[in-house]
Amino acid sequence: MSFWLIHSSDTENGGFFNCLAEDGSVYDTNKYVWMLGRQVWTYSRLYNEIEAYRKKDILDVAQKAAEFLRRYAKRDDSRCYFSLTADGKPVKLQRTIFSESFYVMAMAEIGRATGNKEYEDEAVEMLRCIVKWHETGDLPDGHLPLEGRAECSPLSSPMIILGIVSQVCYCFPQHNAEFGHWKKTAVEEILKHIQRNGTVILENVTPQGQEMSGSAGRLMNPGHALEAGWFLLEYAEEIGSAELRNIALEKFIKLPYEIGWDKDHGGLFYFLDADGYTPVQLEWNMKLWWPICEAMISFLMAYKVTKDEQFFDTFKKVMKYALNSFKDAVHGEWYGYLNQRGCVTHNFKGGPFKGCFHVPRTLYMCQKMLNEIILELSASGNN
Amino acid sequence: MSFWLIHSSDTENGGFFNCLAEDGSVYDTNKYVWMLGRQVWTYSRLYNEIEAYRKKDILDVAQKAAEFLRRYAKRDDSRCYFSLTADGKPVKLQRTIFSESFYVMAMAEIGRATGNKEYEDEAVEMLRCIVKWHETGDLPDGHLPLEGRAECSPLSSPMIILGIVSQVCYCFPQHNAEFGHWKKTAVEEILKHIQRNGTVILENVTPQGQEMSGSAGRLMNPGHALEAGWFLLEYAEEIGSAELRNIALEKFIKLPYEIGWDKDHGGLFYFLDADGYTPVQLEWNMKLWWPICEAMISFLMAYKVTKDEQFFDTFKKVMKYALNSFKDAVHGEWYGYLNQRGCVTHNFKGGPFKGCFHVPRTLYMCQKMLNEIILELSASGNN
Repeated sequence: MSFWLIHSSDTENGGFFNCLAEDGSVYDTNKYVWMLGRQVWTYSRLYNEIEAYRKKDILDVAQKAAEFLRRYAKRDDSRCYFSLTADGKPVKLQRTIFSESFYVMAMAEIGRATGNKEYEDEAVEMLRCIVKWHETGDLPDGHLPLEGRAECSPLSSPMIILGIVSQVCYCFPQHNAEFGHWKKTAVEEILKHIQRNGTVILENVTPQGQEMSGSAGRLMNPGHALEAGWFLLEYAEEIGSAELRNIALEKFIKLPYEIGWDKDHGGLFYFLDADGYTPVQLEWNMKLWWPICEAMISFLMAYKVTKDEQFFDTFKKVMKYALNSFKDAVHGEWYGYLNQRGCVTHNFKGGPFKGCFHVPRTLYMCQKMLNEIILELSASGNN
Repeated sequence: MSFWLIHSSDTENGGFFNCLAEDGSVYDTNKYVWMLGRQVWTYSRLYNEIEAYRKKDILDVAQKAAEFLRRYAKRDDSRCYFSLTADGKPVKLQRTIFSESFYVMAMAEIGRATGNKEYEDEAVEMLRCIVKWHETGDLPDGHLPLEGRAECSPLSSPMIILGIVSQVCYCFPQHNAEFGHWKKTAVEEILKHIQRNGTVILENVTPQGQEMSGSAGRLMNPGHALEAGWFLLEYAEEIGSAELRNIALEKFIKLPYEIGWDKDHGGLFYFLDADGYTPVQLEWNMKLWWPICEAMISFLMAYKVTKDEQFFDTFKKVMKYALNSFKDAVHGEWYGYLNQRGCVTHNFKGGPFKGCFHVPRTLYMCQKMLNEIILELSASGNN
């Protein structure tokens, strides 16, 4: 965290610089709304839950960034831009709901940290827009309605819905009545991605849960499936469903790891094709930091709920790869991008899609789970 | 060429399948308009200029694909889609003018091959739209006009304008009066990309010819600069400008090669940052087939116009790398994508951005130039 606390604040305009080189210097001043929202979330979550981060200056800088987001990221119709200039002018708008989703995460967690009802209202109103857009498919300035564009349910959509509904309900349980049912709906959508008699998780399926044709239909993203795995596992524990727990463990944690782990060089492939073709994505064989983060959380959570040693063994193996390959012991933070053999290809610490989020979230969640596991084992006399 | 002639025709719907695996089998039936336009151009150009390809069945399949393009690729407002289903339904529209530009190339060359005035009219009308959109910046369904979006002149825009104006004037010299001046304008725009006292070619500059801030401003694409090099060299020869010839040779051919050639592993880097940061593009260190193709054409053309042996030596070195690294002697065609060390990472022969174009165009142009060089050297008694 000290890397971000020291290097990322824009003291002139508020908000954070995202594009930080190896040593923390700013190599591009554009600001990315995914990253701003996630960094506000991270600062606020750590402020809320870890004593060492419960400091006024951390909350202050997070709040300035939240105000920057409210002022500059959101359009009148509640769409959020993808990127902004340093002083907040809009640069780019995506055709998806992710900027808006990270806006919800930021507002909910800073709302909890400050007790300021305005942030809670911001989070709730944006969440209402997102679930409406998701339900109707009618996103302003979204994809053009083209006749040949196949109806597609990407795994990312129900995952982000599950994530932000859980986030809002976690911070403000009173909204569970309005939004809680969306968790169940999102989980049902996620489960449609189990395909080919349970042998693969496909990234894109039809809304009816059928495999789509072509490269897009055969696409697998093992890190993404693993992330869905711990989302599902948390939900299974919440509702006490042994059946869903088992699906999460077998289909979304063990299976994507078996398929996605590179037996020759370690690490998780970014993309794979279910029929063994080369994916058309040029970066398919690269090893990214975030799939490893999701794998660490998934396997430790799997061990926590099952106490099955196989999950803890994989957690240790994955963590060892992560710390050996991604961590920069000199300047702090992790590198984000390795080639197939595990050599760093991009030496920056922050970029348009990497910010203050996955690494601190993973370390915070794993530390918390490990503490709970130690307590549980102590209580049962197995330490 | 036999790879494409055997494997790519869609005999049911007309047009070509683009996504061909290593052995030529179709792994995705979507059709990409860049690739369709380029393949029509390639078939027609070879039909027009090489005896061995002057066959009715080659012209027939090109003409069926041209009809497929006319019927399905173009909207009423003359915008062209980026991709279509196998039977021609629109899948995606880009915010740029490249689909439209390859439409012009296809229509001009098939117009020359068939003598059918309808194709000539199609090419000319589309070219009028493109230069208007380029001049006014007012492209239907183009980029949203956002306040923070920096005014940018990407190298690709004047290059494609120069390319398609040259194409139309080459096929139909009578249109030189209307369009010829656009060559000069495009060349002036290209020359604005020489930056930092002539030490770099930058991919994006302001319309006024200043360096832009951030990663986008520092971006270099050596293969693209080399492609601009032979476009400029052709134009310099056409107008007989020794000054422009020298700029093309020194700044757009020698310089990008010196900067872009990987001294350790050979091949041209896809992207570089002028200040030495890692580019944010995940594929920056990959070796792609088309920059090597552009380098082969550029250095051979540089030798042809100067007879300076240094250019021929580099041509041979680049060609040797290309044939050793990209060529598939078993199934035909070249692979398209290698990692930094030169190993094939993607084993398909055709994809959304690789089709029947760069490899045959390069071999056709190089063969033609080599024949001309031999004749010139024979005539001067230096063979």
